[in-house]
Amino acid sequence: MRHSEAGTRDGLARNDVPQIAAALLDRLRARSPRVHCITNAVAQNFTANVLLASGAVPSMTLSVEEIGAFVAGADALLVNLGTFDRERREATGIAVKAAVRENVPWILDPVFIDRTPSRAAFARALIENAPKAVRLNAAEFAALSGSEPTRGALAAYARATKTAIGLSGETDWVSDGERFAAIANGHALMAKVTAMGCAASALVAACLGVEPDAWRATAAALTIIGVAGELAAAKAEGPGSFAVAILDTLHNLDGPALVARAQVS
Amino acid sequence: MRHSEAGTRDGLARNDVPQIAAALLDRLRARSPRVHCITNAVAQNFTANVLLASGAVPSMTLSVEEIGAFVAGADALLVNLGTFDRERREATGIAVKAAVRENVPWILDPVFIDRTPSRAAFARALIENAPKAVRLNAAEFAALSGSEPTRGALAAYARATKTAIGLSGETDWVSDGERFAAIANGHALMAKVTAMGCAASALVAACLGVEPDAWRATAAALTIIGVAGELAAAKAEGPGSFAVAILDTLHNLDGPALVARAQVS
Amino acid sequence: MRHSEAGTRDGLARNDVPQIAAALLDRLRARSPRVHCITNAVAQNFTANVLLASGAVPSMTLSVEEIGAFVAGADALLVNLGTFDRERREATGIAVKAAVRENVPWILDPVFIDRTPSRAAFARALIENAPKAVRLNAAEFAALSGSEPTRGALAAYARATKTAIGLSGETDWVSDGERFAAIANGHALMAKVTAMGCAASALVAACLGVEPDAWRATAAALTIIGVAGELAAAKAEGPGSFAVAILDTLHNLDGPALVARAQVS
Repeated sequence: MRHSEAGTRDGLARNDVPQIAAALLDRLRARSPRVHCITNAVAQNFTANVLLASGAVPSMTLSVEEIGAFVAGADALLVNLGTFDRERREATGIAVKAAVRENVPWILDPVFIDRTPSRAAFARALIENAPKAVRLNAAEFAALSGSEPTRGALAAYARATKTAIGLSGETDWVSDGERFAAIANGHALMAKVTAMGCAASALVAACLGVEPDAWRATAAALTIIGVAGELAAAKAEGPGSFAVAILDTLHNLDGPALVARAQVS
Repeated sequence: MRHSEAGTRDGLARNDVPQIAAALLDRLRARSPRVHCITNAVAQNFTANVLLASGAVPSMTLSVEEIGAFVAGADALLVNLGTFDRERREATGIAVKAAVRENVPWILDPVFIDRTPSRAAFARALIENAPKAVRLNAAEFAALSGSEPTRGALAAYARATKTAIGLSGETDWVSDGERFAAIANGHALMAKVTAMGCAASALVAACLGVEPDAWRATAAALTIIGVAGELAAAKAEGPGSFAVAILDTLHNLDGPALVARAQVS
Repeated sequence: MRHSEAGTRDGLARNDVPQIAAALLDRLRARSPRVHCITNAVAQNFTANVLLASGAVPSMTLSVEEIGAFVAGADALLVNLGTFDRERREATGIAVKAAVRENVPWILDPVFIDRTPSRAAFARALIENAPKAVRLNAAEFAALSGSEPTRGALAAYARATKTAIGLSGETDWVSDGERFAAIANGHALMAKVTAMGCAASALVAACLGVEPDAWRATAAALTIIGVAGELAAAKAEGPGSFAVAILDTLHNLDGPALVARAQVS
């Protein structure tokens, strides 16, 4: 069914994404990377539980006195711009500086930057600090890059910013300017639970904590959460039980089930 | 069983509340109103999930730089006074001003104003800014209006402030000074899950986003959440599974089930 | 199986802890103590729901204008140092002062003080204000006391600070310097849900609200949450359904089931 594809940078084809995802899932459980999260108030609890269910360990302080030390000792940093107040803005400045200095990989989730120009400007300035990955939706990509989210625009923006771009949608797209993956997993109920996208970004951060190649980490994380969403939906009666089931599923997911279900092209 | 009643302002009787609620539920799903929420830290996640399950879309930033733009583009605004700190106080000033200017309907949930005089004074000042509705419990009504919560006192306060008052209790009461509804739905487990009342207020806001008549919107929202609570309780083994089941139930609820179960007089 | 032990301060042996826990559980339901919580943003919602499920009533404002009045009228105060920002630091100063002045029992949960020296210093200063209890893990105990967490070190620190120390771990230890209990209940899934330890501390606070003897209150609370964790795990398929089930279990738990399951020595 799957076949190798020549010419990719690392000799691994996009169709190897399911195997990469399975390997990273094992690594998350073996290494328990700590992910420091600057995330919005709505998402904090669910994000922490998604990380724990996946094998990672969350920390979440925003205190300016503490966040530098927390980030310096973390395996990855998530910066999510939801409910972005003064406290989070200040914390982000310190956290990103610490991440760059200590070589801690970080990911940007530019939530709702299509809604306020000031948040979009802040996101564009943040990109200068070399995030490994950016996860966002189509409207946010347009606000960030100034382009419609075509495959070509994704690749161009990824090259220009030297990041892996993870674009969430009906099908998720992941590009680092050279490699591309389209992940067709996921379920409509994922849009009916708050903070699901925020949690997906946190999972990208966790994978960045155990995998230096940002394209692999991003594609793996979006495959894991998409497959978990599908499996959870099969057990759920609505968004309440779905949110519960996706935590159970992430906790119980194993490599073979993940590979069997992944739809990556 | 139910009968029409002449003399109400709009020719619709209180016994039409179940049909109104069914119609508004359909409208929520068709129009997906965006509700901007200033709400307490405990309630943010559950409130967002109740709105999503009902068909609405939440936004929650408190940032003073952003909240004006978020409210101006929203279909309704919720102001909940729980965990009311400086940030929320400042955000509320800007948000209510934007709502008044842009004609965005807003609702006040004066949480715990019976506990601190300063919060009660703040709530009384807010009422000057013409909320469409106020949802509260008996102790909060007494602190706000200075009267015991009788039917007459509700009507008098609603007339004086030109709002719809939704009083939660064993039976919920809704008055705009002319029309009155008593909603006997709900379940004791609703008091065993934090933020259930806050979420009810958010649902009133969502209904205000699709229905200009505040009495109808308030009565419909309290009927919807009360019926959902009863149906969820039938599936629940305690407050944990109840909180999950009410989200599933809101997501799956349809007009006929709502009308069949509603107890409005 | 269980036997009395002479020589303890109050004539009750450690093996009476299950009966004490059953009595306090009844008291929680009968008296509904209000617990004011200064706790981290990740834990607020789950903590409130654990308190409600156990029979207590949470309040959570951090506002400096309000928190003094809220604490003065509360039955117990929880101070949890997670996500400890300026707002929480300021609120804690006022809250602890009010607790001491009004004789409201309070408990300290020094989250992650092993990670930042400034938080550890703050915790040590707080201990001067006579908390009735401290609940923490081994790393936090070492950071607080400067000693490895042996039984002797626990007793010495409890005597020096006149507190009951509740040390969470594979087996929980409770010491007030004279009495000691080892509670072998609990389940591995408790470490896979965020804020479980925070919620355990909140339950200690609730028990302090109905029981002046801090050793009894602490041992009872840790027994209740440990037993509830075991019973919930038997119904759960992973951490998502476990978090739901523990709320249901706390709500439905009765004295005989608690005593039957408790493993205290």
